[in-house]
Amino acid sequence: MKIENDLLLRVARGEKVERPPVWLMRQAGRILPQYRELRASVAGFKALVSNPALAAEVTLQPVDELDVDAAIIFSDILVIPEAMGLDYDMVEKRGPLFPRTVQTAADLADLRSGATAAQHLEYVYEALRLTKAQLQNRIPLIGFAGAPWTIFAYMVEGSGSKTFSKAKKLLYTQPALAHELLQKITDTTIAYLRLKRQAGADILQVFDSWAGILSPAQYREFALPYLRQIRTALADDLLILFARGAAHAWPALAEMGANVVGLDWNITAPAARQLLGPEQVVQGNLDPCALYAQEADIQHLTTTMLNDFGGHQIANLGHGVYPDTPLDNVRCFVETVKNYRYSS
Amino acid sequence: MKIENDLLLRVARGEKVERPPVWLMRQAGRILPQYRELRASVAGFKALVSNPALAAEVTLQPVDELDVDAAIIFSDILVIPEAMGLDYDMVEKRGPLFPRTVQTAADLADLRSGATAAQHLEYVYEALRLTKAQLQNRIPLIGFAGAPWTIFAYMVEGSGSKTFSKAKKLLYTQPALAHELLQKITDTTIAYLRLKRQAGADILQVFDSWAGILSPAQYREFALPYLRQIRTALADDLLILFARGAAHAWPALAEMGANVVGLDWNITAPAARQLLGPEQVVQGNLDPCALYAQEADIQHLTTTMLNDFGGHQIANLGHGVYPDTPLDNVRCFVETVKNYRYSS
Repeated sequence: MKIENDLLLRVARGEKVERPPVWLMRQAGRILPQYRELRASVAGFKALVSNPALAAEVTLQPVDELDVDAAIIFSDILVIPEAMGLDYDMVEKRGPLFPRTVQTAADLADLRSGATAAQHLEYVYEALRLTKAQLQNRIPLIGFAGAPWTIFAYMVEGSGSKTFSKAKKLLYTQPALAHELLQKITDTTIAYLRLKRQAGADILQVFDSWAGILSPAQYREFALPYLRQIRTALADDLLILFARGAAHAWPALAEMGANVVGLDWNITAPAARQLLGPEQVVQGNLDPCALYAQEADIQHLTTTMLNDFGGHQIANLGHGVYPDTPLDNVRCFVETVKNYRYSS
Repeated sequence: MKIENDLLLRVARGEKVERPPVWLMRQAGRILPQYRELRASVAGFKALVSNPALAAEVTLQPVDELDVDAAIIFSDILVIPEAMGLDYDMVEKRGPLFPRTVQTAADLADLRSGATAAQHLEYVYEALRLTKAQLQNRIPLIGFAGAPWTIFAYMVEGSGSKTFSKAKKLLYTQPALAHELLQKITDTTIAYLRLKRQAGADILQVFDSWAGILSPAQYREFALPYLRQIRTALADDLLILFARGAAHAWPALAEMGANVVGLDWNITAPAARQLLGPEQVVQGNLDPCALYAQEADIQHLTTTMLNDFGGHQIANLGHGVYPDTPLDNVRCFVETVKNYRYSS
């Protein structure tokens, strides 16, 4: 079925287009008053994630409110550990907390993985189907998952962390165990992303949020091989790979066939183009804090960014939009991109 | 007066040496049992920092215990905001907290700066003099300060933060006010570092701990010019500049004349050498988590790092040593460096 506005898919395939498509990481969330209202009416963040009808509603809110070029299913990367058998709580103002973590071979043996684990996430697939139906093919729907290393980091550390030193310690002290856990996560993630695609996702994004805390050597050993497995297993899918804080790894992501390489805001467009070449499709990378500026400044910063990348770009921030960003400023960013035209 | 082991100073001056000197960021701290004991006996972290005799004692602990090639004065980068008139509390497990912050021109007008502010830090200079006397010229003594942007980040944000979005918002919304505050911080830092040198510091390190959360454009506008002022004002001093997470800025630090460029662990030696050239003296950059590994692995990782940089290096971690690092592993790192010899 043809999608009415398929700009994002065309760019992801490497086609030349009239203007960059635009969406924002975390667009379905606290920047929207209708989200905050709905969120206040339920028992917690997970009550939204696990309810397909509500997740679909939240997914569509920014589509209606901001007129972005893509929807991204409202969910959480930590549904994967949960499906594997590690429950978590989302603690207000503290973030995720896992009562149990993986430290030993016995912990590992207790985990489900692959299709067996992925089938526990029926509520996500149902949310995708509902969203897809309600979108009526206006714009593409993005499905996503955390990258194996990032999921591993939470499953071992048990919570967010500035250093993830417990998770990294396991890489240094029990590399074989670490690889086994990473493999189980990868198997689950592949099954999960396949089911997401079958449920309606038009393109998939893998978030390696904690890529930046690994040394380049560790990223090569414990992250890239599993991303490569995902890329290979989903050979027919459009894939956006986002390794935040790990510019050293971006060329490897491009080489393994990421259709789109996500960029954080810690790099200039010329430096990114030097790393990745002029034809690699990139996604990003405005500083989220730039949306605190005056409208004229937002317009200027956004236009400069688009000029500097010179095409083959999905316009986005370099990170999720911050919850306290004024909605009018988000709107200004989106409209600036939508009014932009490539010269040739 | 000649320093007995002046290896670190010779390397910082660009001289060829027989082996790399070694010390660890945060070597004076919780890795040492004698520190933890002393710390438990006083009212809090600031009680140690503000007491010259205790600060000197803590500074010397790792010298005696680990036989490192440099001492670094035990202090805190946040003594500068305090000297300027913004008090802070160090809250256990939460980090620094400023009851008042800088948001307006009026807040800014209330602040002391330059020599007037720096003279409030007599206890730091006294700690340096005591340390210097007790060191008896065995090894060099490092003095340090936070970089203007990092100090600004705390003075505006009021605490640590994952995003420092309040501090960055001020850069985007009130750039003139931001520059005025940065100038006041810079003036104070220059006066402070001069007094530290007069009190006995043999070499100075400036920590830009939050460099990595600025976009390259903002780093160019709000960070580099002030670091350049510091470099120019302290033209005769040996200066280590460490901009964590901002590899894009390291060539600029080298160009402004940093004797030593500090490296975080998020870069390989070949990539760092490509950015900075074979002759630039660098400091770093082992992953702090590598010190959780088995001794044989620590030896291997350390030796590989030294080989890969090929000289002109002060061996260190890419960040402060983590408090729960086993002391024997720290010792293994130090000894591996001290047993290393350059081949030519």
